[in-house]
Amino acid sequence: MNAGVPGQGWTGQGWTGHAVASDVTLEAIEDGLAAVGGVAFAALAVGVRDSAHRDPSAPDLALLDVGRAVPAAIVTTTNRVRAAPCIVGVDHVSSGPIRAVVVNSGNANACTGPQGLIDARAMTAGVASALGCDPQAVVPMSTGVIGVPLPVERIVAGMPALVAGLRSGATAAGELARAMMTTDTRPKQSAVRVSTQGASAVVAGVAKGAGMIEPAMATMLSIIVTDAQLDADTAADVLREVVERTFNRISVDSCGSTNDTVVLLATGDAGPMPRHAIVAALETVAARLAHDIVTDGEGVTRVARLRIGGAADLATATALGRAVAASALFRTALHGSDPNWGRILAAMGTSSAPFDPDRVAVRFGPVVVCRDGGAVPYDLPAAVAVLREAEVDIDVDLHLGEAEAVFLVADLSAGYVHVNAEYTT
Amino acid sequence: MNAGVPGQGWTGQGWTGHAVASDVTLEAIEDGLAAVGGVAFAALAVGVRDSAHRDPSAPDLALLDVGRAVPAAIVTTTNRVRAAPCIVGVDHVSSGPIRAVVVNSGNANACTGPQGLIDARAMTAGVASALGCDPQAVVPMSTGVIGVPLPVERIVAGMPALVAGLRSGATAAGELARAMMTTDTRPKQSAVRVSTQGASAVVAGVAKGAGMIEPAMATMLSIIVTDAQLDADTAADVLREVVERTFNRISVDSCGSTNDTVVLLATGDAGPMPRHAIVAALETVAARLAHDIVTDGEGVTRVARLRIGGAADLATATALGRAVAASALFRTALHGSDPNWGRILAAMGTSSAPFDPDRVAVRFGPVVVCRDGGAVPYDLPAAVAVLREAEVDIDVDLHLGEAEAVFLVADLSAGYVHVNAEYTT
Repeated sequence: MNAGVPGQGWTGQGWTGHAVASDVTLEAIEDGLAAVGGVAFAALAVGVRDSAHRDPSAPDLALLDVGRAVPAAIVTTTNRVRAAPCIVGVDHVSSGPIRAVVVNSGNANACTGPQGLIDARAMTAGVASALGCDPQAVVPMSTGVIGVPLPVERIVAGMPALVAGLRSGATAAGELARAMMTTDTRPKQSAVRVSTQGASAVVAGVAKGAGMIEPAMATMLSIIVTDAQLDADTAADVLREVVERTFNRISVDSCGSTNDTVVLLATGDAGPMPRHAIVAALETVAARLAHDIVTDGEGVTRVARLRIGGAADLATATALGRAVAASALFRTALHGSDPNWGRILAAMGTSSAPFDPDRVAVRFGPVVVCRDGGAVPYDLPAAVAVLREAEVDIDVDLHLGEAEAVFLVADLSAGYVHVNAEYTT
Repeated sequence: MNAGVPGQGWTGQGWTGHAVASDVTLEAIEDGLAAVGGVAFAALAVGVRDSAHRDPSAPDLALLDVGRAVPAAIVTTTNRVRAAPCIVGVDHVSSGPIRAVVVNSGNANACTGPQGLIDARAMTAGVASALGCDPQAVVPMSTGVIGVPLPVERIVAGMPALVAGLRSGATAAGELARAMMTTDTRPKQSAVRVSTQGASAVVAGVAKGAGMIEPAMATMLSIIVTDAQLDADTAADVLREVVERTFNRISVDSCGSTNDTVVLLATGDAGPMPRHAIVAALETVAARLAHDIVTDGEGVTRVARLRIGGAADLATATALGRAVAASALFRTALHGSDPNWGRILAAMGTSSAPFDPDRVAVRFGPVVVCRDGGAVPYDLPAAVAVLREAEVDIDVDLHLGEAEAVFLVADLSAGYVHVNAEYTT
């Protein structure tokens, strides 16, 4: 399988439009996170949040352990209101290699002030003490309700049992994937084997989605592990590049979370791998997880793969795509299978990014509905049929250059409103 | 009535938080647009749009005539995709005084290319021919479906009958207000008498709201008339100042239209008036119309008066308020009467405007729910009761300075989704 090859349509893996070099072979692996050797997983119910909504026996604390400190990279939210675990995670990754990632659901440890930082550090110290490693080798992640102090004593008390439960294999990885979930309806894992020039490695990841946290805030968390050999600088560099084309190009509700975090750990067991091959594998895994986050978003019934092409530069394509992705009018039209292309132009027009409205063309699947910024006669039933599919290709051509950006955008349904209008309490 | 006085709570007129000087008296007038003498109105059904949704006998073309060309000002959308009537209107106002405003509903004449400009000019030429005035003395406005050529021949053919129907009085003004409506459920007019230092004048306005246009795009149009004597420069200056604090501080869905337009005509019959008094009157009228637009927005069940205070400067307060107003998570929580203050902080954090999360305080009505960026114990039932009202005061204090911006924000309901997911077709 060569995911991401333009002109072959798109699947969960291949929606970013970024071409894979011909010397790289990618092969999907069913095992998910467990596909990378030497990684152990554990999950436990410690009662992070007492809630009538939650099954008290469902694990809400999880640990991923690669057995020794290895080169790592982290990308966290750009939100000015940044949760304590994001601050601690960035601090720990910048201070050296990482051995483990600890995740709790049910409480985001956000808007919790100085005590939040103390609590996030206590989480990592608890893991370190039970594992026998440096606390700085542990990255903490939290997702859940915000503005509520983390019940850190329950988390720390659970650490010995959590560490004692560490095991490898798909079952244990699946339990970790479930423990991270909040309003996600299904766990999200992806793995791929990448081969090039005689070298081979595995990249595997897990994510929890932009669902509300009982319900508090859309947050995405992801842990990606590879047995390729990467130094920390390369890991940071490739992770940033790939996140920009995958997790930063999805929109469920355009609401940036306080907790968004992606961590990459590179064990090195498979030896070195050319940069372009590791980027291709990482992008395939991240694109799949990002796709699953959008399709499992709250109230989502339909997803558009929105391509803004023909742009003068990438920044313009990205800004215009974000403006469309943020438009409630565009997203309700998508929900209603309405080929209302005027909403796309109007949404782009609210952006400060430059384009010429009189040169824009818009296409729904194969059906051109707008050319030179104006209406063209088109087959209406054909356009509606395209928009009735679960995954819809929408192509906007600015006719100003060669740059493009591709987004996955969820529709806006009454279901989204219902999920998010409930009480926190 | 002294609308807009801080500390007196807020009504439709007084939500902007901008104080009225003690030497100015404002008195609401029931007559609406007809309160300004010497202005005539007409409305006619010409079948701009054939649609099963529309009563064919409902007027969709309207005219306001002040009898002679007078100083005028115009503010139109900042959307890069600007409808033809906006372009022509700005051109005509900049070229000299204005006598009449012609408005059609049912078609926005947007995304219609060079032909759209020809059609918008033909509308003004038709009015000018029937009235016996310069075409440049006529401002065109259009609202309705976009990307569809304006049926300008029907509009021009209707002009003689439209002009023959011009009459003064509240009944005729009411017909104009109705002819402008699209998915508005009620016409919107407001009038106020302003007195100061022995001088007196009337300011009166009409608006159509940010409702979808059968359904195509949220557009607001407003015409405001005064008998105060203003030169064109002063009219432009006060209109811009007041629009910034009123029509630019409301949000139904954060979707900027291609057609938004506000026109001010000053007949001068009442003589000169100090600037601060005319601003107070204009702001009262515009605030009322803006309030009515939000409360009559699609699917709106609740409106928040969101004050971002304690800001270092106005630009920061405005940017942070816009970020909150644009947040689907904030607006669904408002819909659900959920005191989920974390969504406010998270929305502000996505803005590039600077603030210190650790200094923020949030108040729902009298109930303080967040201080120093963190949770404080509060009376939950009291906060929920505040959020169950139709109009809710939400106060965010940044504790960084003295600047503030006040917004009216509609909730996001399933009703909004239902209205906007229907076919254009």
